[in-house]
Amino acid sequence: MKTRIGILGYGNLGRGVECAVRKTSDMELAAVFTRRDPASLAIRTAGVPVVSADELPAWQDRIDVLIVCGGSATDLPVQTPACAKLFNVIDSFDTHANIPAHFAAVDAAARQGGRLALISAGWDPGLFSLMRVYFNAFLPDGKDATFWGKGVSQGHSDAIRRIPGVKDARQYTIPVPAALEAVRSGQMPDLTTREKHTRECFVVLEDGADPEAVRKAIVEMPNYFADYDTTVHFISAEELAANHKGLAHGGFVFRTGKTGWENEHTHVLELRLQLDSNPEFTTSVLIACARAVKRLADKGETGCRTLLDIPPALLCEQSAEELRAHLL
Amino acid sequence: MKTRIGILGYGNLGRGVECAVRKTSDMELAAVFTRRDPASLAIRTAGVPVVSADELPAWQDRIDVLIVCGGSATDLPVQTPACAKLFNVIDSFDTHANIPAHFAAVDAAARQGGRLALISAGWDPGLFSLMRVYFNAFLPDGKDATFWGKGVSQGHSDAIRRIPGVKDARQYTIPVPAALEAVRSGQMPDLTTREKHTRECFVVLEDGADPEAVRKAIVEMPNYFADYDTTVHFISAEELAANHKGLAHGGFVFRTGKTGWENEHTHVLELRLQLDSNPEFTTSVLIACARAVKRLADKGETGCRTLLDIPPALLCEQSAEELRAHLL
Repeated sequence: MKTRIGILGYGNLGRGVECAVRKTSDMELAAVFTRRDPASLAIRTAGVPVVSADELPAWQDRIDVLIVCGGSATDLPVQTPACAKLFNVIDSFDTHANIPAHFAAVDAAARQGGRLALISAGWDPGLFSLMRVYFNAFLPDGKDATFWGKGVSQGHSDAIRRIPGVKDARQYTIPVPAALEAVRSGQMPDLTTREKHTRECFVVLEDGADPEAVRKAIVEMPNYFADYDTTVHFISAEELAANHKGLAHGGFVFRTGKTGWENEHTHVLELRLQLDSNPEFTTSVLIACARAVKRLADKGETGCRTLLDIPPALLCEQSAEELRAHLL
Repeated sequence: MKTRIGILGYGNLGRGVECAVRKTSDMELAAVFTRRDPASLAIRTAGVPVVSADELPAWQDRIDVLIVCGGSATDLPVQTPACAKLFNVIDSFDTHANIPAHFAAVDAAARQGGRLALISAGWDPGLFSLMRVYFNAFLPDGKDATFWGKGVSQGHSDAIRRIPGVKDARQYTIPVPAALEAVRSGQMPDLTTREKHTRECFVVLEDGADPEAVRKAIVEMPNYFADYDTTVHFISAEELAANHKGLAHGGFVFRTGKTGWENEHTHVLELRLQLDSNPEFTTSVLIACARAVKRLADKGETGCRTLLDIPPALLCEQSAEELRAHLL
């Protein structure tokens, strides 16, 4: 019997999950839940019901794993604990600083409901976190470096859009090539925020807005831009739509470490991601996590987990024997 | 109380384990076991006994995890199952084709002894295997590519040394840069063996040996060299000792995969290792595995495992809470 997947929330992530289920032979989409009017939602998979989120409690026996596809700022802190009382759940909560609090809330709810949850799945947190943990385990005497991009930062784009006079904006985070090369060479440099990434902004102005005032408001914005070399381009709404609607992203996780009696040997470990579609890769990870959660829930496990707690073999459709024979 | 590590076999790997223990604060070296005369062995760590391998059974209560540091061809198939009846054990068995049989033998022995074993730890199999499994789980519709080098292949160096007229030899496996770039670009090329790696050999001849006959014997050797572009350099024993005794190695694991309703999005995942010392990085992985095995054995787990079965957080000295707060 296939694992029955539910989706809560039908934005970029929800649509990505719907698409990712098709790449598996052991899972099927059972329902899409929405806070909007279900009649207003056209999903792509034929024969799958669209249901009001209010009806979630009635679906406990028809969903094996519910994937909560909301935003980390306001949706997930409420939705994931609420759903974890009723369902095995997965989310992609990505506000790093708030992970311990979110973990505690979801863990308590899941234990109360006798369910299993996995939070913060995706690529960062997610695959990047796994790399940081393996790299630290295997090279305990060393130094980490993570780079993001080239890709659109949603948070930074939103910050620009809140500036008076800005109609729309898109912000790219770009690793500095010289910094990447310095880390890759094993030098273990101490890099400032400015030396690691640059920020490039494409901004559509409201009629009559002052470009210089907007530019100044961007490049001097604390936390978001003041510590970076930032370039601002003013473009038309048409150009933004034509050239800056892509969802590509990527990044690098490095660890450089020393071994040997005199620390005479240097090792450089590097993970690189090049993603054409940030949400589709994220949801591909979520689906693999749903498989592992189903397998562990079937063994009676409850509470909250992250990818750091999951035996990797459980994420794959292949059996442990097949993985040992072909991928080990 | 620190985890008490035993080492069986004091070659490159055994010495690497001895050195790697020093990078931890939760493990200590308890004894080195050898098949040689213990009095003939000078180890570097003061106060640690060197004991005859014959006395292993008497040490069951004084060793938490025994790391079996033999060779995969003849040592480990015998030693690891024998030791797994008496100790929690780790090995670096790396003959990929024989892993299922080795796993079965070690699993039976460990269950019989009520012990926990982990086999095939290191970087390939090991970290590379983990990457192949995660990459397959997260991009089920895709294509793998693994490259090794630049680094010395022990098996190929040994094969050259068996040719009449050869006194000593060192063989480097080198990835072809154009092949790496083609894979990294997302093209998913079909690469032949010859297109992926070249082989470079440094050979010291016996007095009076015919260089051309040796060169022909190397480049035409089936399985080892016939399918590759191979370069042979004849050098002096002094030059071999001066320039070709390094233990550097490395490699790349790629997976390129498609997502999207029309498979319109391509993703490229890449792990790269640059290792100054192949045995020291391998043993650094073995020590992390010893930590996880101790933790799981303390919970009562028995039988055989590989890294694919181990929750990553168990490999790290930090607690699960610390990892969630700082590395997730």
